[in-house]
Amino acid sequence: MTSIDDVCINAIRFLSVDAVQKAKSGHPGAPMGMAPMAYTLWDRFLKHNPADPQWPDRDRFILSAGHASALIYSLLHLAGYDLPLDEVRNFRQWGSKTPGHPEHGETPGVEMTTGPLGQGFAHGVGMALAERWLAERYNRPGHTIVDHFTYAIVSDGDLEEGVSAEAASLAGTLGLGKLVYLYDKNDIQIEGSTSVVFTENVAARFAAYGWQVIGPINGHDVQAIEAAIASARAERCRPSLIICQTIIGYGSPAQGTAKVHGEPLGEEGVRAAKDALGWPQEPAFYVPDDALAHMRKAVERGAAAQAEWRSRFESYAAAHADLAREFELYGRGQLPEGWDAGLEELFPPDAPPNATRNTSGKVLNVLAKRIPVLMGGSADLAPSNKTLIDGAGDFGASTPSGRNLHFGVREHAMGSIAGGMALHGGVIPYTGTFLTFADYMRPPMRLAALMKQRVIYVFTHDSIGLGEDGPTHQPVEQTMNLRAVPNLTVIRPADATETAEAWRAAIANTTGPTALLLTRQNLPTIDRTQYAPAAGVLKGGYVLWDSRPGQPEVILIGTGSELELAMKAADALAAEGIGVRVVSMPSWELFDAQDAEYRESVLPAAVRARVAVEAGLRLGWERYVGLDGEVVGMDGFGASAPYQKLYEAFGITAEAIVERAKALLAS
Amino acid sequence: MTSIDDVCINAIRFLSVDAVQKAKSGHPGAPMGMAPMAYTLWDRFLKHNPADPQWPDRDRFILSAGHASALIYSLLHLAGYDLPLDEVRNFRQWGSKTPGHPEHGETPGVEMTTGPLGQGFAHGVGMALAERWLAERYNRPGHTIVDHFTYAIVSDGDLEEGVSAEAASLAGTLGLGKLVYLYDKNDIQIEGSTSVVFTENVAARFAAYGWQVIGPINGHDVQAIEAAIASARAERCRPSLIICQTIIGYGSPAQGTAKVHGEPLGEEGVRAAKDALGWPQEPAFYVPDDALAHMRKAVERGAAAQAEWRSRFESYAAAHADLAREFELYGRGQLPEGWDAGLEELFPPDAPPNATRNTSGKVLNVLAKRIPVLMGGSADLAPSNKTLIDGAGDFGASTPSGRNLHFGVREHAMGSIAGGMALHGGVIPYTGTFLTFADYMRPPMRLAALMKQRVIYVFTHDSIGLGEDGPTHQPVEQTMNLRAVPNLTVIRPADATETAEAWRAAIANTTGPTALLLTRQNLPTIDRTQYAPAAGVLKGGYVLWDSRPGQPEVILIGTGSELELAMKAADALAAEGIGVRVVSMPSWELFDAQDAEYRESVLPAAVRARVAVEAGLRLGWERYVGLDGEVVGMDGFGASAPYQKLYEAFGITAEAIVERAKALLAS
Repeated sequence: MTSIDDVCINAIRFLSVDAVQKAKSGHPGAPMGMAPMAYTLWDRFLKHNPADPQWPDRDRFILSAGHASALIYSLLHLAGYDLPLDEVRNFRQWGSKTPGHPEHGETPGVEMTTGPLGQGFAHGVGMALAERWLAERYNRPGHTIVDHFTYAIVSDGDLEEGVSAEAASLAGTLGLGKLVYLYDKNDIQIEGSTSVVFTENVAARFAAYGWQVIGPINGHDVQAIEAAIASARAERCRPSLIICQTIIGYGSPAQGTAKVHGEPLGEEGVRAAKDALGWPQEPAFYVPDDALAHMRKAVERGAAAQAEWRSRFESYAAAHADLAREFELYGRGQLPEGWDAGLEELFPPDAPPNATRNTSGKVLNVLAKRIPVLMGGSADLAPSNKTLIDGAGDFGASTPSGRNLHFGVREHAMGSIAGGMALHGGVIPYTGTFLTFADYMRPPMRLAALMKQRVIYVFTHDSIGLGEDGPTHQPVEQTMNLRAVPNLTVIRPADATETAEAWRAAIANTTGPTALLLTRQNLPTIDRTQYAPAAGVLKGGYVLWDSRPGQPEVILIGTGSELELAMKAADALAAEGIGVRVVSMPSWELFDAQDAEYRESVLPAAVRARVAVEAGLRLGWERYVGLDGEVVGMDGFGASAPYQKLYEAFGITAEAIVERAKALLAS
Repeated sequence: MTSIDDVCINAIRFLSVDAVQKAKSGHPGAPMGMAPMAYTLWDRFLKHNPADPQWPDRDRFILSAGHASALIYSLLHLAGYDLPLDEVRNFRQWGSKTPGHPEHGETPGVEMTTGPLGQGFAHGVGMALAERWLAERYNRPGHTIVDHFTYAIVSDGDLEEGVSAEAASLAGTLGLGKLVYLYDKNDIQIEGSTSVVFTENVAARFAAYGWQVIGPINGHDVQAIEAAIASARAERCRPSLIICQTIIGYGSPAQGTAKVHGEPLGEEGVRAAKDALGWPQEPAFYVPDDALAHMRKAVERGAAAQAEWRSRFESYAAAHADLAREFELYGRGQLPEGWDAGLEELFPPDAPPNATRNTSGKVLNVLAKRIPVLMGGSADLAPSNKTLIDGAGDFGASTPSGRNLHFGVREHAMGSIAGGMALHGGVIPYTGTFLTFADYMRPPMRLAALMKQRVIYVFTHDSIGLGEDGPTHQPVEQTMNLRAVPNLTVIRPADATETAEAWRAAIANTTGPTALLLTRQNLPTIDRTQYAPAAGVLKGGYVLWDSRPGQPEVILIGTGSELELAMKAADALAAEGIGVRVVSMPSWELFDAQDAEYRESVLPAAVRARVAVEAGLRLGWERYVGLDGEVVGMDGFGASAPYQKLYEAFGITAEAIVERAKALLAS
């Protein structure tokens, strides 16, 4: 006699198998092996409400092995999310809610976009971190409003990726006990057996990180899985890894081999698998009534759980009205009134020269006082990045109220953890490192952009202006590279006043991440009584200064530390009677988002004598200077020397700008 | 009484301290703590010849903690490399051989460029892998010509980085016993104590990877270090990690704190440290005669060791002339005559449509037959990347002659290991993954470009053309991002014939890495009897076809899979009597390296009606189309659907090209 558990598990399996088969592409093997653990978790433990995927106190569930996407679509449909069977049938098709890999924002109940391996693992750490911090901030004696788990299913591939190693080590250090990961150990990867590349003792490794390791258990045994998850939940001081030994493609003729990983089973394979597991051949996408009824109980359970929570929240709100309001405000991703008041007056015209990393630190601290959920840190460069919030304490296992995060030298996990915090909601995360090390954290930045998450990346030491540390530390191509990421806003402010506006833009950007590129070296503060207001930053590019009214003869475009050079060059050109305009262009994305009229007002199409200047790659600036303009910049790597020497040696000087401008006017 | 060991160690310490102090920037603390382990290794074990840093059978030494650069400069100077004391005095200055972080190619004896943490660790694994493979290929009974160790000093920060975790796991799996790493465990990082971020049990973690772990030992005790290195060398089946407990900034008043990490000690600090360790205050850069004499014995020892090896090599050459010639040929980075003969004839005009990933696999296999040291693999996507060399076997602990590498899902370590193999020399490494996952391996690609190393990166699934896997797997910005890396040559071939030329260019590029961007989907083979020869790839961009002689009215520029669309559009335009040119532009870097006359011959300045087409970001193409042209491409992320649907939905079609071209001509 088949138990209801088995029926449900096979329903999950064959919805997945049929979806892949119909799409003629996808990954059937992983869902077939993972179905028991996913089912057990969802049926016995997962606190969620299919009718309200945004319920703040729901458990988070991440399918880190995103290629098993058919699994989560099957689960969501069966559990009663707004994902009709037709969507499952429409797997991987244009316009469906069931894309090839799970995408946050496309499908209700998908907590994050996965597919790039290791990211789900590491983002989950960020979610658990956010939960821990929020619980500490908001819960009060007798009033527990934040109390949920972060679960993930992770694969062999997830555990091979370095980002998961970084995140696991930090999660152990931080004692994130409400993190529960089910490891689908099927010993198979695309190139064959994991024995060729992955013979390490995973259990011993995670124990070394300070995790509770459970198993290996039989990953197809519901009772064993249930007991393991119960043990994991009971351990509140250490994250838990449950090692589930499974068989990829369970039930199919090629089970336990790489053949079932990334291709449909084929008609014969589907038939054989259904026979092997006693499943009806027809119809495809068959869901037995009892399975649907059983799994749909999630709707009732979820409604009851959320209602119970809501009533708790109301009594909390009665006792702690301010906290409750704050919790709801930030939960919606909103900001308190007046959060950015007076930022434009932080740096008066006579403010002494300063590095934008320093002025960024000042702005951050002003904002952090007004926005208590603004929190973050650096990958071991906080004193250089100026990312510390004064007096806000360090987040740690025994100090969970701290807002300063210490990531260690783990840029990649830092990016992922910050992404996970943003996804969790209720907090506004930021990170810090040198701009050149943006290269270490590209995958989570891309994911944040794709998932439209508000994460703020502070990148200091943004050019050869960092000097002696040399080419390994001097970004050259990174600025351009970040500009190329869709939906990532890059802002490279030119002085203190622009830095304040850059932070304003970053905090206000609720539909994507923002990267702030800041100098190590001092820059003069632009006297805004003489030059256009720094608020122009919010439009990405703006006319800073015209030597005389009317159409300019030549336009100089600068960003960040090089705007000063453009201004000096403009003075020299103006002194010779040339009509010159200086455009400050801190953000290409913001500028390109303006309407054509505004862009024309800044960069008139008729004026083709244009010189851009940036202490980075020249490549890309053709976007604004075209085939007829000039770029004062770099074509190769930097060098080690005091920075003044480097600017001179690489020819990034006011004189060079003047010379190019004159040559253009003469041609 | 002070031993000669202590004198030498303090000489290393204070050369480093004085260099940092004079430069007014740098990292004194690490050299002060690491000096004993570095000295012991160099004095007792390291097989090297200061007079010939290129000796192929030398031990490799990597300072993974590159910020401790003053340490290696002190060592190199004292051991007798071509690095005069004046260079040490000139630390971190323009034109010196002593840049802020060690740079391969700038300083004799610096095996690799370090500074970005984790990279030295992971590149060392590549060096040890190359040594193991070369030993297997070339050594013969009675003739051992390849037999050396790879040593590194690694720091807390190195071990926090995920790339070192990936590489360590693989090194354990592969049993690279001649890898010996000294871990400078000083428990301090920039943000303070490692206890805040790094409480894992490192010894247990590395044991879990299958490493021999020795210690913790007293890292300031020469005898203990010597015994530990001897044990490490004796273990030939497992890599070894020697945990050396040290004190950062040993001897300075602030020893054991983050204060001594990244700033000069200051005059008082220097004075106090010299007092504390009994070192004369004056002169700065003091080297006692006995210390110099002792350390310079390395010159004599090295000359003798190399001479002994040379005589062994000569008897080897007498017995195995072909192997000896081959060893020397590839050791010089050269290629056998005829290595690329006939590549242009591999794909006849009537070759059926095929994906460039497939034709790449065919070319690779042709080349691999002719170049026995061409070796590499994929990060678990070999069947998709088509990177397997038929019949060449898998490299493994018990099969060290295999040329197919299996990296597991570890793109970052893959890039670093390939870089280490190239640095080692004697082999030509390649890697494989999907183009979107280039994001995971940016740091080692940048290092390979900076170090001018021949590494070939095979990136398949190079656009929305991969279809159903969706936006996480569809590169959009990656092509542009790779083009932005200085000295990285990016080639996106348009068909089988261009793919053959792309491989020719990649193998021939001995001064930098090359990325090959290849399709998942089939493309027609261009009939070269009708169109210009594919050899134009070697010039980066070339005129594929002109509808009629003379100056064209409009130029269509395409790469990779979109060249087909440009060709179709050109046919349509030509049918309407418009003078149209099609330019194939597989490599911006190669094209930009041509002289102005050639470039003008392809893209005449006078023709401003230009349309570029690429299934990737439009951003950047302004370089060739300017302010007046058009780009048919993308501005955001892709989507999940069959690829034909995606091309249509994103408007990347021949019709769109025609329309833009006509609009330009009409304007």
